[in-house]
Amino acid sequence: MWYLVGAAAAVLTTFGFVPQILKMRRTRSVKDISLLTLVQFSVGVAIWGIYGWHLKDPVIVAANLISLLILLSAIAMYLKYRRATLR
Amino acid sequence: MWYLVGAAAAVLTTFGFVPQILKMRRTRSVKDISLLTLVQFSVGVAIWGIYGWHLKDPVIVAANLISLLILLSAIAMYLKYRRATLR
Repeated sequence: MWYLVGAAAAVLTTFGFVPQILKMRRTRSVKDISLLTLVQFSVGVAIWGIYGWHLKDPVIVAANLISLLILLSAIAMYLKYRRATLR
Repeated sequence: MWYLVGAAAAVLTTFGFVPQILKMRRTRSVKDISLLTLVQFSVGVAIWGIYGWHLKDPVIVAANLISLLILLSAIAMYLKYRRATLR
């Protein structure tokens, strides 16, 4: 049962930036978003993944790899729409 | 030495929303920010904290409690500036 509590927490935080990405996609506006927050999270989850690799824990590696992919998508979308705004 | 790697990852992700909060404070504009992302992270780190309590791991509890406080500050600031925009 406690396993499910941990799993729920992991799913919520791993996919935490998905609503933000969907909003960026919908509005095509990213002016108020902090790029530094996205970059800081990306570096953070990358290091978490390396730490999980060291611990030989596949759950930590997988969760942080998924987070990293979501964050890189968010950064790509940020840069795309920021450029569009500047034009 | 690996302890420092885990600590670096924890600090980066725990304080990940700080640059976003500073940007909200500076620009007083929150239009592009996803409230759902902030709420989803808040619920997620709250459950992580409960899970850490179950594991009797003070590091997990403390890190997620700090994250939760930062996220609640971000939500409070979002609501404040969103209301200001609507006026």
